[in-house]
Amino acid sequence: MNVPATTAASPPAASHHPRRLGIDTGHEHVVYLHEHSPVCRSEGFGAHSRLELTMGDKRLLATLNIAHGSLLAMDDVGLSESAWRVLQPHAHDRVTLAHAPSVDSLAGVRAKLFGKSLDDTAMHAIVRDIVAHRYSNIELAAFIAAGCADHLAVDEIVALTRAMVDTGERLHWKQPVVVDKHCIGGLAGNRTTPIVVAIATAMGLVMPKTSSRAITSPAGTADTVSMLAPVELDEHAMRRVVECTGGCMVWGGAINMAPADDILIRVERALDIDSSGQMVASVLSKKIAAGSTHVVIDIPVGPTAKVRDASEGKALASLLTQVADAFGLHLHILLSDGTQPIGRGIGPALEAHDVLAVLRNQPGAPADLRARALDVAAAVLELGGAAAAGDGRRVAAECLASGRAWAQFQAICEAQGGLRTPGVAAYRQPVPATRAGIVQAIDNRRLSRAAKLAGAPSSPLAGLTLEVHLGDRVEAGHPLFVLHAESPGELAYASEYVARHPGIVTLEDSP
Amino acid sequence: MNVPATTAASPPAASHHPRRLGIDTGHEHVVYLHEHSPVCRSEGFGAHSRLELTMGDKRLLATLNIAHGSLLAMDDVGLSESAWRVLQPHAHDRVTLAHAPSVDSLAGVRAKLFGKSLDDTAMHAIVRDIVAHRYSNIELAAFIAAGCADHLAVDEIVALTRAMVDTGERLHWKQPVVVDKHCIGGLAGNRTTPIVVAIATAMGLVMPKTSSRAITSPAGTADTVSMLAPVELDEHAMRRVVECTGGCMVWGGAINMAPADDILIRVERALDIDSSGQMVASVLSKKIAAGSTHVVIDIPVGPTAKVRDASEGKALASLLTQVADAFGLHLHILLSDGTQPIGRGIGPALEAHDVLAVLRNQPGAPADLRARALDVAAAVLELGGAAAAGDGRRVAAECLASGRAWAQFQAICEAQGGLRTPGVAAYRQPVPATRAGIVQAIDNRRLSRAAKLAGAPSSPLAGLTLEVHLGDRVEAGHPLFVLHAESPGELAYASEYVARHPGIVTLEDSP
Repeated sequence: MNVPATTAASPPAASHHPRRLGIDTGHEHVVYLHEHSPVCRSEGFGAHSRLELTMGDKRLLATLNIAHGSLLAMDDVGLSESAWRVLQPHAHDRVTLAHAPSVDSLAGVRAKLFGKSLDDTAMHAIVRDIVAHRYSNIELAAFIAAGCADHLAVDEIVALTRAMVDTGERLHWKQPVVVDKHCIGGLAGNRTTPIVVAIATAMGLVMPKTSSRAITSPAGTADTVSMLAPVELDEHAMRRVVECTGGCMVWGGAINMAPADDILIRVERALDIDSSGQMVASVLSKKIAAGSTHVVIDIPVGPTAKVRDASEGKALASLLTQVADAFGLHLHILLSDGTQPIGRGIGPALEAHDVLAVLRNQPGAPADLRARALDVAAAVLELGGAAAAGDGRRVAAECLASGRAWAQFQAICEAQGGLRTPGVAAYRQPVPATRAGIVQAIDNRRLSRAAKLAGAPSSPLAGLTLEVHLGDRVEAGHPLFVLHAESPGELAYASEYVARHPGIVTLEDSP
Repeated sequence: MNVPATTAASPPAASHHPRRLGIDTGHEHVVYLHEHSPVCRSEGFGAHSRLELTMGDKRLLATLNIAHGSLLAMDDVGLSESAWRVLQPHAHDRVTLAHAPSVDSLAGVRAKLFGKSLDDTAMHAIVRDIVAHRYSNIELAAFIAAGCADHLAVDEIVALTRAMVDTGERLHWKQPVVVDKHCIGGLAGNRTTPIVVAIATAMGLVMPKTSSRAITSPAGTADTVSMLAPVELDEHAMRRVVECTGGCMVWGGAINMAPADDILIRVERALDIDSSGQMVASVLSKKIAAGSTHVVIDIPVGPTAKVRDASEGKALASLLTQVADAFGLHLHILLSDGTQPIGRGIGPALEAHDVLAVLRNQPGAPADLRARALDVAAAVLELGGAAAAGDGRRVAAECLASGRAWAQFQAICEAQGGLRTPGVAAYRQPVPATRAGIVQAIDNRRLSRAAKLAGAPSSPLAGLTLEVHLGDRVEAGHPLFVLHAESPGELAYASEYVARHPGIVTLEDSP
């Protein structure tokens, strides 16, 4: 060895100016570096490398994109919106970059892919890392894939459910019985929740209901209820409402229950994979985190519903019950008719009008929504001990007919900040039948799409009202449904879509 | 129905100005829209929606990111580098956006996840869509996950291999025997290929070798050979070299063979999943596409190598042979010692120096590299019919010792554009033993990392030379390895890494 040792200079500075690029990449943190950034070269970073960012005592893992041209300076690090929210840098903060340390819990994901089963510890480590945004989209997809079909045993679903509960907030109530309801694979317009809460709490049960906003549908329960009362209550305000009235109807997003669920659901939806294990963990983790003890689960069954036939419904019911048992959670499962939309309105305000009509016993109230709400309320009353077995339907109907449910509903809305009256959209357009016939089928998916194109849920008065149901006889020119919009442009957009898809309502010749 | 029909205005324009943002997102096309873009609202697009872009007769599928602030105007659509390359818009081109149509082949991925098997048609549809960049990262991860472990049957691996060959370029040679070699899970420094090509073609065989550049290692074969001759030849130039000399050593990236492989390998690497089915399809599809008929596959076996033990090696060998049989491809598989790096140099030029030393029969040439190259060459000669069974090693050694291999190597380099002499890095720093002892273990992974931090392969003279092998006795102060760099900054960066990881070479007390 005749090579002289040279004196080593300092390594290149690996500290970077954080720059907000204003790019929303969804839940995956993304960072951006200049292609000639010294750290890219020396660390061998390339597009899709996983990096660890450190700023003071804050750390995050992110996926790298490479910036060419003038988007970034050489010592900038661009941050996606989600990464910016975690770091919240001040003007003089600097960020250091390194190869991401290996995420140990991924060993569990790989083991599962190779056919091993996951225990509580492994599942908890995975879910904790998912909630901490330490999984890339690719890694999340592998976890979803590993657990789909019937690859998760009941023990594993229990472990997943427990991990999802433990990695978020959990509500506790002093009452021994806390009831709840959930509908799997909701039908358009099937907005029974506000009616069920009013009946159950009017009859003395405790029902602190948290609901979600729409992700892909024209309205979530929270969107509809927000037309009738404020729903964005924090835990303290929510507790006050429940103490006053026995119930509430609030947006769950303000309380961080089972946060892994939102992340996993987005990836499952992107893959269009129905995994019964993940679905059971998703539903039950939210209920357990909300402190519920007795839950009615409505499973609509129909050819275009999420659950296609009775045997699939029964298998899901059995899985839900087995997992619930492990947590001492009491379930009652209803398999209901899922062949068509329920009620008339689709869209936040339009569904709220339906709910009000049922609660006020108005003559034109949608009978199918009323019947479905009473079915669910009956099951809740019996499961919660507020009605004898077989007597729930009668008690619920009487509560509704007597006006007690409506009075109770008003009390809850007042406690949440005041009852609101939903408005009516300025622009409406009927979609008429082009021929006479009997309504043979209604395409739920395209109907929802039309309501969304009209502006629902971000334009809350928008959506549509369905004017026919299966088996109805219509004449040519009779409206099948009416589009509602807040602007002419949105109405035109929905109208154009409907014109391109004439088969949303299928008419057959009368027999 | 008393609601009057309004006159519908035109739907909002869905045509957008393409804008190049200069963001390299890897193989996944990404597009960027302003958060208040009318199409986002009306179509319900959100971060991670899948969109179809149309410009004239060009179409692509892309994942959406949402831009806040001033990055984009309301009617801009930002394009990632990969999307820009596909569309290549001119100044006045406009792009229209729509929800991505469903990618039908994903039904096959879901079926596989649910335990069904994939036939030729389904596998071909999947691979064709992957090559057309119609799969998001999430969807690619699901496909990798569906086929990992032993979830792919031999028939499915054959179908995957065939689909990967059929969706790329395929070379055909007029000669009936075309030999090739491949090493699975390469060891650092194990650069036998140029020596084997020289010996095999000197002995009359046809060996048109295509190799890859490094993806994560300090040097790929094409990086090393490019220190000795031009390697970026198109198919026409490559054929001329093979006609002249019987062989070549070129970069395969200029020829679009089995392009699905590069896309799948990146996702597999991100997941750190070893899937033997995918690996077999990856290796064999490239060989079949290259027109090879007789292939020697070297599988180094060792505790830190890709294949950990002999039984794993034998299972992989059996799978390779079964799949190769389906294509009439003749394989010979060598299970070799994978316990430590081969040769001295790690990095493009440093490995090239080792190759030259062996070919020139220089006294200091690394004996382990020479022996390994002769083993592989012997197998190639026997498999290709240029040596009798059991006589290959003698023929290969004689070819090398006589100078025929060196003359042939020079002829190939000249035909490729001229023999080059690799240089020597300006900055070097020995890393000495801090104590006396026997070399017990060498951490391949960290050694490669140090070579990369020193600048390899993008600084082609950089890397390191290993001064000891397992079992060597060293004194305190004796160099274990020497870092080579083209700049003081890179040397410092590697040196700092080595100082933080003193256990790259483990020394034990002498017995």
